[in-house]
Amino acid sequence: MEDLSKFRGVIPPVIIPLKGDRTLDAVSFERSIDRMIEAGVDGLFFLGSSGEVAFLTNDERDRVLTAALKIVDGRVPVLVGIIDMETMRVIDQAKRVSKHEGVDALVATAPFYALGGPIETERHFRAIREHTDLPLFAYDLPVSVHTKLNPEMLMRLGTDGVLQGVKDSSGDDVQFRWLMIENEAAGHPMQLLTGHEVCVDGALLGGADGSVPGLANIDPVSYVEMWKASQQGDWGRVKELQDHLAKLMMMTRGIKATVGFGAGVGAFKTALWQMGIFETNQMREPVAALQGDDVRYIVRVLRQCGVIPKESLMRQAWD
Amino acid sequence: MEDLSKFRGVIPPVIIPLKGDRTLDAVSFERSIDRMIEAGVDGLFFLGSSGEVAFLTNDERDRVLTAALKIVDGRVPVLVGIIDMETMRVIDQAKRVSKHEGVDALVATAPFYALGGPIETERHFRAIREHTDLPLFAYDLPVSVHTKLNPEMLMRLGTDGVLQGVKDSSGDDVQFRWLMIENEAAGHPMQLLTGHEVCVDGALLGGADGSVPGLANIDPVSYVEMWKASQQGDWGRVKELQDHLAKLMMMTRGIKATVGFGAGVGAFKTALWQMGIFETNQMREPVAALQGDDVRYIVRVLRQCGVIPKESLMRQAWD
Amino acid sequence: MEDLSKFRGVIPPVIIPLKGDRTLDAVSFERSIDRMIEAGVDGLFFLGSSGEVAFLTNDERDRVLTAALKIVDGRVPVLVGIIDMETMRVIDQAKRVSKHEGVDALVATAPFYALGGPIETERHFRAIREHTDLPLFAYDLPVSVHTKLNPEMLMRLGTDGVLQGVKDSSGDDVQFRWLMIENEAAGHPMQLLTGHEVCVDGALLGGADGSVPGLANIDPVSYVEMWKASQQGDWGRVKELQDHLAKLMMMTRGIKATVGFGAGVGAFKTALWQMGIFETNQMREPVAALQGDDVRYIVRVLRQCGVIPKESLMRQAWD
Amino acid sequence: MEDLSKFRGVIPPVIIPLKGDRTLDAVSFERSIDRMIEAGVDGLFFLGSSGEVAFLTNDERDRVLTAALKIVDGRVPVLVGIIDMETMRVIDQAKRVSKHEGVDALVATAPFYALGGPIETERHFRAIREHTDLPLFAYDLPVSVHTKLNPEMLMRLGTDGVLQGVKDSSGDDVQFRWLMIENEAAGHPMQLLTGHEVCVDGALLGGADGSVPGLANIDPVSYVEMWKASQQGDWGRVKELQDHLAKLMMMTRGIKATVGFGAGVGAFKTALWQMGIFETNQMREPVAALQGDDVRYIVRVLRQCGVIPKESLMRQAWD
Repeated sequence: MEDLSKFRGVIPPVIIPLKGDRTLDAVSFERSIDRMIEAGVDGLFFLGSSGEVAFLTNDERDRVLTAALKIVDGRVPVLVGIIDMETMRVIDQAKRVSKHEGVDALVATAPFYALGGPIETERHFRAIREHTDLPLFAYDLPVSVHTKLNPEMLMRLGTDGVLQGVKDSSGDDVQFRWLMIENEAAGHPMQLLTGHEVCVDGALLGGADGSVPGLANIDPVSYVEMWKASQQGDWGRVKELQDHLAKLMMMTRGIKATVGFGAGVGAFKTALWQMGIFETNQMREPVAALQGDDVRYIVRVLRQCGVIPKESLMRQAWD
Repeated sequence: MEDLSKFRGVIPPVIIPLKGDRTLDAVSFERSIDRMIEAGVDGLFFLGSSGEVAFLTNDERDRVLTAALKIVDGRVPVLVGIIDMETMRVIDQAKRVSKHEGVDALVATAPFYALGGPIETERHFRAIREHTDLPLFAYDLPVSVHTKLNPEMLMRLGTDGVLQGVKDSSGDDVQFRWLMIENEAAGHPMQLLTGHEVCVDGALLGGADGSVPGLANIDPVSYVEMWKASQQGDWGRVKELQDHLAKLMMMTRGIKATVGFGAGVGAFKTALWQMGIFETNQMREPVAALQGDDVRYIVRVLRQCGVIPKESLMRQAWD
Repeated sequence: MEDLSKFRGVIPPVIIPLKGDRTLDAVSFERSIDRMIEAGVDGLFFLGSSGEVAFLTNDERDRVLTAALKIVDGRVPVLVGIIDMETMRVIDQAKRVSKHEGVDALVATAPFYALGGPIETERHFRAIREHTDLPLFAYDLPVSVHTKLNPEMLMRLGTDGVLQGVKDSSGDDVQFRWLMIENEAAGHPMQLLTGHEVCVDGALLGGADGSVPGLANIDPVSYVEMWKASQQGDWGRVKELQDHLAKLMMMTRGIKATVGFGAGVGAFKTALWQMGIFETNQMREPVAALQGDDVRYIVRVLRQCGVIPKESLMRQAWD
Repeated sequence: MEDLSKFRGVIPPVIIPLKGDRTLDAVSFERSIDRMIEAGVDGLFFLGSSGEVAFLTNDERDRVLTAALKIVDGRVPVLVGIIDMETMRVIDQAKRVSKHEGVDALVATAPFYALGGPIETERHFRAIREHTDLPLFAYDLPVSVHTKLNPEMLMRLGTDGVLQGVKDSSGDDVQFRWLMIENEAAGHPMQLLTGHEVCVDGALLGGADGSVPGLANIDPVSYVEMWKASQQGDWGRVKELQDHLAKLMMMTRGIKATVGFGAGVGAFKTALWQMGIFETNQMREPVAALQGDDVRYIVRVLRQCGVIPKESLMRQAWD
């Protein structure tokens, strides 16, 4: 059976460029989105964690999404995060997102803030399904929501038509492998995407339907090439590209000023700024833009990986 | 120096009664609030974790708060939770809450969802302060937000006038003791309240300014009496009341159907329903109301603690 | 019923002095033990976490225990840790300890290293009981063994005669309060001791049988006085002493060179060295003795709390 | 440069068969070891977590190792775990192990029980090196020791000649990928082995020097074939074998009676018993052997994966 799904291949979670005043820089946004589409990505995921969804008010989310959809203009499928605390708030986000034309799927995490158990997690996804129409992806992100989605539950939700697929950013490759095997045995009801930038090769070898790598904002071409090589069974080439991308990902781990999101997405924004795609590396409150040694470190990684020319000048402060 | 603050004593986080359709039951809400005020509580905290804030859409939060303020009508100080993921969303909640007349203070947690560090946590509270006018309490709730507020940071924020006080639900009594000692040494800039229902006696002995116990929805009189006894130095009576309340709190720990919030607040709602204060023990999606054996267990605890008469009938299903 | 147990009151976990070559300094050991006994402690606990049990080979444990028992010479009851990974290794330690004359009770944690569940934890204590004769205390120390002992299980083990008592260092004061209440209701089969230095007052108010505070190595007199005041119901005095001890405990939290055990027990050893009770603040491999600013910080705390004279000289490096 | 190291390929951590009385079953031990060597494994790892090292007294460890070395008789390299709490106890284990003829390398975890930081972890491995002569592997097992080994530290220890290699059971494939890349860049000073049974294919694609899979006790042939296929670049075959092994590994996840070690190694022992290699599925105290439905479930997985014939009889209770 041919797989006709539009939710496969490389689907970057889109990072948003900000002006110095921390509002959306629409010009850079267009430049970055166009660049990814021209590189051949198979879809785009807006309002995800890397898209600073947690830092945007509802009105700002609306504005970002409006701008995004206008830029994409139907060129690739669009997935949109409906990230909020508990079920009815998530459904509220879903209703807001669904008013926009051009959204192809919704992406929801497990509920968070109030401690729950497996019964509440499963009911959560079923309730979202009952209140919405668009295809729904489960976003497995225990680092943010402190619940790991159980593969058996995901299979039930997939075969019951609740879920269209899973974006796995759990870092638990054992569970993801089992999920892929059981999804295959059940007739492949779900599209299984890995968000694990550095281990996409292993996931593809294991049968993943694609990837959602934040790092593809910086180097979309290599992720697209890796995906194509995997489809052709050229695993030597896949490994080569993954090694290059793993080295590039090292930009996130030598950051000294802070930890977590500010270091990870902060490094990505700094790279896009230094590459001339963004005009700043500004972040949303309460996160500060990376500076000084951290910027120099990132530039060094970009040069070593050949993403910017070795002799290029470092861009200086933007404000 | 006499302490004139209005944020001390017993300040219950108010649990909300729902109708079978999961919307606010305004009649029971009034009954429960009146009962607590008549018992002598010193304030009320709305839209906290126990108030299902994470489960309410923004519109629903507005409706709950409107109803609450109308019922309270200035009889006691009102604290209101502005619970959301990251800084700008929290400030957005603060603006919405601040439009209401009769709100005396705001209560905010550390940011959550996006992984951060101490720099972001401190900046978060300062940014909220810059964008709001009402007194601000920090809500230390690592079980929900996965960040423990550092006592040294809290002291800086208190002495800088950012924080009016702290509601400590961290369960870390060592850190809370040190915070009380240093707050005292600094001239008592902050009101320090414990949310730790079962250990209020130790906190009061250590110098806490009051408590924010969910269990006071069920037995406000005992918490008020315990507070008064502590003010008179009658620690034998304090212990006696705390032992009674600790036994009553056992209603939350024998629940079989689920874990976490659904067991804890679920038990409180079930008690209020069985006591005739609420008309149901309904919960918000995705949490199910407790049933069967769990209800019988809670009734047994209520009878043993003398909260309902031993020969009382158990209320049956409400839908 | 009069409580005749010898396991109540203040029972310090004994910290061991080392020479520069990291072997036991028997002279300082005697000085420190004598000082605590003269201060009126009700027992001593050897080979606990604070006693560096994890850092001593079996032969070294034997030597420390031999020296300890000779010094104590029956003046107070002696509890001894039988700390090892899983059941049969713990029993092996118990057999080794039981060969010594003068040991009054054994102290064992939950099993660690191999991940287990509640069934294995309960079986563990029952198996130890089957293979040993001395009274057995459960040591609740999740920070080290990553299992919290369940109060219901502890009650079963207490009423079945498996456990003589519990040393609670879990930091979970809610569970400990419930345990005290249920132990009382069951006729007080177990002696319940808190290891929570900074919150002993609350535990005593709640009905604890005593404390096992590492800080009592530094200031045994205040812990003994606090215990006596609590027995007389003088809670104002209890609070005063606890506040003093909480301030003294701050010596452990400003350490910059390292974290965890090296900072905590490292600070205690540094205090004992500066007070002239130990000749060094040496630690066992792989932990380094505190130096420089950390030592100065500890001396400052000791002076502020009046433990050493304000004008005293700081002792300089010992090697 | 040709890699002449003897520590590469498939090196199973050897599971030990017990008699009903929980002592070593030497006959089954020989059968199982011979079977793995005949399947072509490249080495054997004794006294690891799967080998119940935490459950064996020092004397029992000696007996197991004596029996193991006699059976192996130099046919393959032998690695031996020196698992104990803190540095000097680990060195004590190393000395005991080093007295045996035929041991090729030692394997040590980070220190555990006493909370430490990165300084202590690094010093720990350096101290072991100073006190021993055999090649030393670091065993990265945060699930047991609650410390993740930092790749930068591992690279320092590798280039300084402290470590011969790493057995990675951390489940953190991002860090492991980075470690492989940096090890390669540094001239491959360390042998990097994955203990992650279900994701060996991705690790080999990423450049791992081999694997240490507990599941190879059950199906050594498939792991050996997978290794050979990877050396020939036949990634389609690698994936096929890994999928088979991932399905076989499902035997560990449907266990109902317990969790963790008792479910994981318990399932492996039950499989070996049902396959006729072990005479029982007995475990060490405090772990109980799996029974009833759990055994039936494991037999079903073994049949589905073709490891035992579909029509085979299930072996009944052994005691």
